[in-house]
Amino acid sequence: MTSPVHFRCETDGGIATLRLDRPERKNPLTFDSYAELRDWFRALPYRDDVKAVVFGSNGGNFCSGGDVHDIIGPLTKMSMKDLLAFTRMTGDLVKAMIHCQKPVIAAADGVCVGAGAIIAMASDLRLATPETKTAFLFTRVGLAGCDMGACAMLPRIIGQGRAAELLYTGRSMSAEEGAAWGFWNQVVPRDDLETAAQDMARRIADGPNFGHMMTKTMLNQEWSMSLDQAIEAEAQAQAICMQTQDFTRAFEAFAAKGKPVFEGD
Amino acid sequence: MTSPVHFRCETDGGIATLRLDRPERKNPLTFDSYAELRDWFRALPYRDDVKAVVFGSNGGNFCSGGDVHDIIGPLTKMSMKDLLAFTRMTGDLVKAMIHCQKPVIAAADGVCVGAGAIIAMASDLRLATPETKTAFLFTRVGLAGCDMGACAMLPRIIGQGRAAELLYTGRSMSAEEGAAWGFWNQVVPRDDLETAAQDMARRIADGPNFGHMMTKTMLNQEWSMSLDQAIEAEAQAQAICMQTQDFTRAFEAFAAKGKPVFEGD
Amino acid sequence: MTSPVHFRCETDGGIATLRLDRPERKNPLTFDSYAELRDWFRALPYRDDVKAVVFGSNGGNFCSGGDVHDIIGPLTKMSMKDLLAFTRMTGDLVKAMIHCQKPVIAAADGVCVGAGAIIAMASDLRLATPETKTAFLFTRVGLAGCDMGACAMLPRIIGQGRAAELLYTGRSMSAEEGAAWGFWNQVVPRDDLETAAQDMARRIADGPNFGHMMTKTMLNQEWSMSLDQAIEAEAQAQAICMQTQDFTRAFEAFAAKGKPVFEGD
Repeated sequence: MTSPVHFRCETDGGIATLRLDRPERKNPLTFDSYAELRDWFRALPYRDDVKAVVFGSNGGNFCSGGDVHDIIGPLTKMSMKDLLAFTRMTGDLVKAMIHCQKPVIAAADGVCVGAGAIIAMASDLRLATPETKTAFLFTRVGLAGCDMGACAMLPRIIGQGRAAELLYTGRSMSAEEGAAWGFWNQVVPRDDLETAAQDMARRIADGPNFGHMMTKTMLNQEWSMSLDQAIEAEAQAQAICMQTQDFTRAFEAFAAKGKPVFEGD
Repeated sequence: MTSPVHFRCETDGGIATLRLDRPERKNPLTFDSYAELRDWFRALPYRDDVKAVVFGSNGGNFCSGGDVHDIIGPLTKMSMKDLLAFTRMTGDLVKAMIHCQKPVIAAADGVCVGAGAIIAMASDLRLATPETKTAFLFTRVGLAGCDMGACAMLPRIIGQGRAAELLYTGRSMSAEEGAAWGFWNQVVPRDDLETAAQDMARRIADGPNFGHMMTKTMLNQEWSMSLDQAIEAEAQAQAICMQTQDFTRAFEAFAAKGKPVFEGD
Repeated sequence: MTSPVHFRCETDGGIATLRLDRPERKNPLTFDSYAELRDWFRALPYRDDVKAVVFGSNGGNFCSGGDVHDIIGPLTKMSMKDLLAFTRMTGDLVKAMIHCQKPVIAAADGVCVGAGAIIAMASDLRLATPETKTAFLFTRVGLAGCDMGACAMLPRIIGQGRAAELLYTGRSMSAEEGAAWGFWNQVVPRDDLETAAQDMARRIADGPNFGHMMTKTMLNQEWSMSLDQAIEAEAQAQAICMQTQDFTRAFEAFAAKGKPVFEGD
């Protein structure tokens, strides 16, 4: 892997930690960082060195969304062909995160708005600090709340009524609300965010990674299935997992009254 | 528009405020008011003078549902053909609300039960007072909880387990429960309900109405899509919104360090 | 009905109360009890003597999931053909519960883990005690969280973010969390659990059972429908219910200022 140019990425012990890297402007996205993130997540299914991803903050903020001057200005002058190419690219980032086969943990401090809120939403697990302010700002810039999958995903995380309010008004969701509503899995003090995210990632990465891959696949695959279809799909998926060595390792460790060491196959 | 006969309707500054109008009986629905409400919402997509709808209360109550003598009595004597015509008409009211292209804000004080609870549920945003009592009473009159879309919509607002309890037992949900569960977006003192609903409607009506129309469309359209389908659908929907003038207006206001004035096109 | 051999079952006044029956091992499931439970629920639609089911606890615990020695050991040695036969059998238990046409109330004390947590999740209503500990343990034994429909059902009960955390980590959900998240409908003191579950079952069983059957059918049927499809499906379902005698009984009782006695037809 060549190192990414438009965002930071450190890989250590199976955990890749990403951060946007313009902290002086609260880490906005640009055309370049969107595309590079999309490509990075698209390559992830083929990488054995990454078991879990932390999408972290930088300089006290997560992400301020699409840059007003770099992105919004140019968009107001584009043809429909180019606009659709752009909205598909941003959607492709979400699709790439969903299909990357590794759990993604957002660790969002401070500003988490617009496409930044979407990146948090599209992650599998979400950590925040009391200072995290999350807003789906699209309506503030004259657009619709349906951006990058928000009208599908947000209602499934926090419920249809709360999602509607955030998407119609663009108002900020406090960290306390986000925890009460199930958006954030944990809210930790600012100084503990990095550690908490790495601990969560460690726990995931040390688990049965083939199983995690299947959990992620099915959590996203089953949204539009009937219940009967979902149950059959899981019967097949879990039967596959039962032929992994990690399943045998767990049983043998249990029989020996020990703790299993998973290897992901 | 001729004024409705079976409910009250005032339109002011882009906000239409509806109320059922038999306060002495807690505002029950009748065959006539069902049909007229359905037709009113069906005409709404073609009206430029309404940007947002408040479905308000009257005399301290929202709606007591289908009138026992005017509706339930006759139903017990109808043929299947006429029964299905009735249940389809009530369902058509919900469909008309969903497809009316303008955000609907329920402002429910006091009694909010039966089809009244459904009208609140089918609204986009919901306000209550501490006195609001909401019950899906169908089981109390010997029927099923699956009325006007309740088994589809209620679980997506408050979760499958809580919805099941309300629909099987017909028990009352307190305002406090409704707020904690995400049914109510706000609970305000009785005297503040009208103002809070108008403020919320004002905020919506002053926003980018073309964008709001698309948000409403997609929030309802994406329920049965796969995630990948939803993301593509939003890429198309948002690209359309990026060709509105409101998007340009927002950018220009931002560049001039001002506040955008949206015009809905 | 012959009495089941691998679990306990008492039927009284229209309420069937089931319990797993190896309290000394916290009531694990075995190949035999899985199959017998599946068959028992599959026979339920044809039984008029059962109006509601309580799936209770035994010796202070609900269920410890698939027995490690009786189930997990043998599974680690099976062919894919046999593994899929097993995962389909466990899925068939959930399908049988969903399609049994009678509301099922889980009354879970103490340990409620693995397939035990799934049985609680697949029930219609759920009661717990402060001592109830619920965990979707599959990841701990090297498997995926997608077991018996968990990736479809759990997000609809507690939201996608919380479900993801429980399924990826296998961590225990406390009774307090489960109540706040909408997993448990009620948390009652240990000594009151049996009574609370029977009271809830009584309330259900005394209701309009044909209507309840339809509520259960539609709550599960509508997951993958569009909103418009769901509303039409409910128009048909409720029109059917309006031709039951229970609907007439309710109206007549109301007109006579009395309380309806439902008979389920």
